[in-house]
Amino acid sequence: MTETSSPSPATQGTDGRPRARGLGVPFDGDCGALNSITDVPGVEVGYRTLVDGEGSAGSVVGEGPVRTGVTAIFPRGRGTPLGRVWAGVSAFNGDGEMTGTHWIREGGTFVGPVLLTNTHGVGMTHHAVVKWLVRRPGYEAETDLWLLPVVAETCDATLNDMNGLHVGEADVIAALEAAQGGPVAEGNVGGGTGMVCYEFKGGTGTASRRFDLGGKAYHLGAMVQANFGRRPWLTVRGIPVGQLMPDDSLWSREQGSIIIVVATDAPLLPVQLQRVARRAGLGMARTGTTGGTGSGDIFLAFSTAGRVEETVLEPLPSLAYIPNDCIDPVFAATVEAVEEAILNALIAAETMTGWNGQRVVALDHARLQEILRAHSRLNES
Amino acid sequence: MTETSSPSPATQGTDGRPRARGLGVPFDGDCGALNSITDVPGVEVGYRTLVDGEGSAGSVVGEGPVRTGVTAIFPRGRGTPLGRVWAGVSAFNGDGEMTGTHWIREGGTFVGPVLLTNTHGVGMTHHAVVKWLVRRPGYEAETDLWLLPVVAETCDATLNDMNGLHVGEADVIAALEAAQGGPVAEGNVGGGTGMVCYEFKGGTGTASRRFDLGGKAYHLGAMVQANFGRRPWLTVRGIPVGQLMPDDSLWSREQGSIIIVVATDAPLLPVQLQRVARRAGLGMARTGTTGGTGSGDIFLAFSTAGRVEETVLEPLPSLAYIPNDCIDPVFAATVEAVEEAILNALIAAETMTGWNGQRVVALDHARLQEILRAHSRLNES
Amino acid sequence: MTETSSPSPATQGTDGRPRARGLGVPFDGDCGALNSITDVPGVEVGYRTLVDGEGSAGSVVGEGPVRTGVTAIFPRGRGTPLGRVWAGVSAFNGDGEMTGTHWIREGGTFVGPVLLTNTHGVGMTHHAVVKWLVRRPGYEAETDLWLLPVVAETCDATLNDMNGLHVGEADVIAALEAAQGGPVAEGNVGGGTGMVCYEFKGGTGTASRRFDLGGKAYHLGAMVQANFGRRPWLTVRGIPVGQLMPDDSLWSREQGSIIIVVATDAPLLPVQLQRVARRAGLGMARTGTTGGTGSGDIFLAFSTAGRVEETVLEPLPSLAYIPNDCIDPVFAATVEAVEEAILNALIAAETMTGWNGQRVVALDHARLQEILRAHSRLNES
Amino acid sequence: MTETSSPSPATQGTDGRPRARGLGVPFDGDCGALNSITDVPGVEVGYRTLVDGEGSAGSVVGEGPVRTGVTAIFPRGRGTPLGRVWAGVSAFNGDGEMTGTHWIREGGTFVGPVLLTNTHGVGMTHHAVVKWLVRRPGYEAETDLWLLPVVAETCDATLNDMNGLHVGEADVIAALEAAQGGPVAEGNVGGGTGMVCYEFKGGTGTASRRFDLGGKAYHLGAMVQANFGRRPWLTVRGIPVGQLMPDDSLWSREQGSIIIVVATDAPLLPVQLQRVARRAGLGMARTGTTGGTGSGDIFLAFSTAGRVEETVLEPLPSLAYIPNDCIDPVFAATVEAVEEAILNALIAAETMTGWNGQRVVALDHARLQEILRAHSRLNES
Repeated sequence: MTETSSPSPATQGTDGRPRARGLGVPFDGDCGALNSITDVPGVEVGYRTLVDGEGSAGSVVGEGPVRTGVTAIFPRGRGTPLGRVWAGVSAFNGDGEMTGTHWIREGGTFVGPVLLTNTHGVGMTHHAVVKWLVRRPGYEAETDLWLLPVVAETCDATLNDMNGLHVGEADVIAALEAAQGGPVAEGNVGGGTGMVCYEFKGGTGTASRRFDLGGKAYHLGAMVQANFGRRPWLTVRGIPVGQLMPDDSLWSREQGSIIIVVATDAPLLPVQLQRVARRAGLGMARTGTTGGTGSGDIFLAFSTAGRVEETVLEPLPSLAYIPNDCIDPVFAATVEAVEEAILNALIAAETMTGWNGQRVVALDHARLQEILRAHSRLNES
Repeated sequence: MTETSSPSPATQGTDGRPRARGLGVPFDGDCGALNSITDVPGVEVGYRTLVDGEGSAGSVVGEGPVRTGVTAIFPRGRGTPLGRVWAGVSAFNGDGEMTGTHWIREGGTFVGPVLLTNTHGVGMTHHAVVKWLVRRPGYEAETDLWLLPVVAETCDATLNDMNGLHVGEADVIAALEAAQGGPVAEGNVGGGTGMVCYEFKGGTGTASRRFDLGGKAYHLGAMVQANFGRRPWLTVRGIPVGQLMPDDSLWSREQGSIIIVVATDAPLLPVQLQRVARRAGLGMARTGTTGGTGSGDIFLAFSTAGRVEETVLEPLPSLAYIPNDCIDPVFAATVEAVEEAILNALIAAETMTGWNGQRVVALDHARLQEILRAHSRLNES
Repeated sequence: MTETSSPSPATQGTDGRPRARGLGVPFDGDCGALNSITDVPGVEVGYRTLVDGEGSAGSVVGEGPVRTGVTAIFPRGRGTPLGRVWAGVSAFNGDGEMTGTHWIREGGTFVGPVLLTNTHGVGMTHHAVVKWLVRRPGYEAETDLWLLPVVAETCDATLNDMNGLHVGEADVIAALEAAQGGPVAEGNVGGGTGMVCYEFKGGTGTASRRFDLGGKAYHLGAMVQANFGRRPWLTVRGIPVGQLMPDDSLWSREQGSIIIVVATDAPLLPVQLQRVARRAGLGMARTGTTGGTGSGDIFLAFSTAGRVEETVLEPLPSLAYIPNDCIDPVFAATVEAVEEAILNALIAAETMTGWNGQRVVALDHARLQEILRAHSRLNES
Repeated sequence: MTETSSPSPATQGTDGRPRARGLGVPFDGDCGALNSITDVPGVEVGYRTLVDGEGSAGSVVGEGPVRTGVTAIFPRGRGTPLGRVWAGVSAFNGDGEMTGTHWIREGGTFVGPVLLTNTHGVGMTHHAVVKWLVRRPGYEAETDLWLLPVVAETCDATLNDMNGLHVGEADVIAALEAAQGGPVAEGNVGGGTGMVCYEFKGGTGTASRRFDLGGKAYHLGAMVQANFGRRPWLTVRGIPVGQLMPDDSLWSREQGSIIIVVATDAPLLPVQLQRVARRAGLGMARTGTTGGTGSGDIFLAFSTAGRVEETVLEPLPSLAYIPNDCIDPVFAATVEAVEEAILNALIAAETMTGWNGQRVVALDHARLQEILRAHSRLNES
């Protein structure tokens, strides 16, 4: 196996296994130190991973196996749990759920952490995050009379006893309280635990880009819960890897979805963050999907740069922004980070057996390298 | 007190008190027999009303008082719980939540009942309706691998211990299982129990219109959870009633929201149902609001006319529709039914005392009649 | 005839006839000195009114009668013709045209004057404004390589030989070059010349509101090209005037459209300007429409407060804004100004005969006052 | 040079030069006989190409050189000029113009031909198509009182004297009257004459896919006016061709736009056509763009399958549709056809010199083949 020399968090996962660029997959642009959404200052990520029970034929609803979890992303850190940020949202294909988006479209902001889980865990996750927020000390003093939390999902019913509703209140709170900065785990973790991507094992992935504008350095990071795509569609940096690795495919038509969260410390207006969110779809497209009907492809972008003033009129608040004619590096960073985050999810995920004995195989690293090498698309160290 | 002769469900509430047209408020158009969303064949409504504890100063989160509830609306009756329908959605002001709308915008349909509750009860309600749906007999045979239920909210924190999260799983199921056709209660019931409208007691209201197109009779009904508006804004059939009834007002700026559900048996394409949903805002406007920033004004419209074919290609399914040049009666019915439903909510609601001893007074019927009479805007029987 | 004492531009038109509040129609809020969109500093309006030929039976396409025109609105005055501003757009009902809106939705800005004309004059008007802009001195030095002008329309085919395409390049340039501040004419002028509203003669109208926020005074003005509504729908301050004045009605179903332009000097983010634009629909609703299918109801809002920086990154530009929780006075001003502008259009317009001898009568002032008085809704001086 | 054997219209252009698949560029899916939008029965295309004057330094506005034109696409053939169709629209990035889209979003239909031209030619093109439509025999008998034509643009100012406004009324009519079925020219023709794509010469391109659903064969064709992208972004079937062909690049930041028109004979609801339009962006993404701010990426999709009934209520009209769960082949065809159409535009376009002597080189066919071959991505015959 070929890896780049001197492993770093950018190339090597928290489990010591290589990430996409650790395998030599070539990318454009410069990533941040962690190559993670946590490269954006303040962003913290917490997981609760639920794996329980044998996966074998004859599964019964409510009895497992459990292959699911919860991911919590705090835009401004767990220490400022309400942490309002400017935001934008875009649904490439709306066969999915992300709560809280009516106000993001209207007001260009949201409050609190972003939660990712399975489709039927949305309700309990929403309930639990509200409970957690209103019960923390100091909530009374806040200006927010009501909370419209952002909870998004992809469907893990292929591997998980999703109708057993195994995500509980305590699991959500555990994810919230586990949030931290630094390197973040990928693959079968958090909300991504039981996900399937291009008929390989999918899950959680992240990546980042660093870019300069006007003499300042900014970061942009993406986190995906990747659960979409048919095998023949998969391309890795343009190479039709899926068609060349047809074994252990699962379906005749696409199942699943992708949730993409993009964070940046670049100052942007809400309309600009909508544009960033929309561009997440270009990163998704680079991995080969033709956008199946059942895929809930919903994208959120937020900026930690500007304070959001909701109530004070004197002095009049103002919001800094990157002028539109200078914004292309933000867009390029988005597309590149999203593409790499999806590939990181595929490369980090490990083979899993679950509901009714269904087995979903991991993308084989060596075979991937071999195919890329055969197409002169592998960075050899 | 002046009422129209021969009370009927259209003019008299289930509690025997007069509805808006029972008081002589003049309306355009013909209502259905019940003047209710249940005039649309198949539509059934169930409530769970939660009122518990004294409302007095010094309320503590988690200890009540409880002034909340859940409303369940089944488009095709409780007997067909998944009952997929064609639908459209419109957010006049997105400071609120309605789940399930990404797919309504994308696919033009939704599955299952529509649930209305308080803002912080959205999560538990979502959780419970998913649980109820996946556990009923026959779910395995359904084609829906995942559920994206429609759960909407308005905020009852003025009267209810909303942060105490008093809506439980059993309450949601009780509302679902209470659903039936026929006359429906209004005012302090179901999800509308603790709501406030134009600084009077608000809540649940409904109304309907009957119209003919191409020789066929159709019905359109609206149900609102009315929790919006400042007192000085309130107009009743154009008369500035709020300015003439300034007593017991509550706020210096608007709180609250309105959820509007429009049902019809007229056959309409999803793009046309979006148009119907948008016109709900004209009905809302007639009651005087200038559209405050904090009001989550989210509108759903669905048609029970056409079957929604999702999977079978042979024979090719088709969808009947009202041609656009003939659709104005549907739009007029929407505006009129929504306006009347809001007034019905105001007129049915009764004075309530709740959180921290807050008292919200009902709209006085006699004074309303007096004001309308003084402006030559009262139907005298 | 009852008028308020001491006529001013706010109550009396440029032709010396009373405007809505000059007739005693009651309104909420305080208007600006001119009660016009030109109360917003920098906003200038120019007209080119085209009336030619007798209106009699047997009209032939291309031979007139001509009953049309062009309206030009400069957000930052004619002296700064490119005058980029922050903006938002909302289409309540999209059966109409407003060019330039793709970028308004995307970038939150537009460049140049706003032009209003008839439906089939959109092309020539677009052509002419591009020509005028690129040929003025100094254009080479501008940063805008391409222009996406805002040109909107309503249909005057009831009175005008619209298919004769009588708006020429010179007419558009005449409107542009006539732009000025100060009191503006209403009724049968500019793009509104041949319009019909609630089956009375309609056309151009304007109004404004003045409000204080954080100790500063701001203005918001609306200009409408009113060409919508059926007679029985018309309400004036809530009174069903249209049903009480059924004579000389024209149609069995709605024709026409309304374009609304809202200008303000309050500092607002583009997402907030979208909200302002959407609220124009509440003002429209107050005049009674139920939103007919054929009405192109497209609303534009712009703010002159902030410079729009498109290209310079150092120093980072920033945009002041009214915090969302303080924005309700802006929304109220919008609703009120739009409602009053529509009524001003109806009250200023004069009876016109045109295409094929069609005669459209003006709203009778005395009869309007009489009806409002009978409903205790007239301000008597 | 390697070409596939037995040239056909699918592989060889009307000028006898190879198209993308004629060069051996590998594609998924089956194309129609012509590999063109005209594979969709009824669709006809006409061009007016304007090339005049030497391109040399010192160009003066109004004096040329002229490098522009007009493209006309009739959904139902020139013989039925109003030819109303069901449609959907999606703006990936709205820095451009497509008129007529307010009604497409609202009503899900449009009337008449689709016109493509340069940015400053939109007005004259709109004017001319209205004139042409209202003057043809039989217009009086039509139900359409007003026309909202679809006119879209990309900016050819790099090569064309765009501010000279050289598109005249007669040019538009010439394009309309040239429309026909059969093989269509690509590259420097019609509205695409002066366009630039990935800093190579761009322009007009087309491609199609054929697919079976429910035992029936359907066609879907795309036509693009390709004028977008920076050189380093260009990927051809995943290979970073642009980075490997850096010569003769033009810019430090993206200029330009892409208009995509997708036609199909598959029966689809308007909401489904919006979904098809949105997926055009995935095809665009495959060619490497990261979605620059200045690119007006506006996509239109229409179906010729169903008649659009606007006025007749008896019998109630109905619209056949592909069920959502069966629609993925339509989406795949869209992505594939759009990608191939863009590559066809690049491959057909020839080196051009224009405004101020600016020279834009064509993509070198042999070098492209060489690069693809080196990456094992060339079909060798």
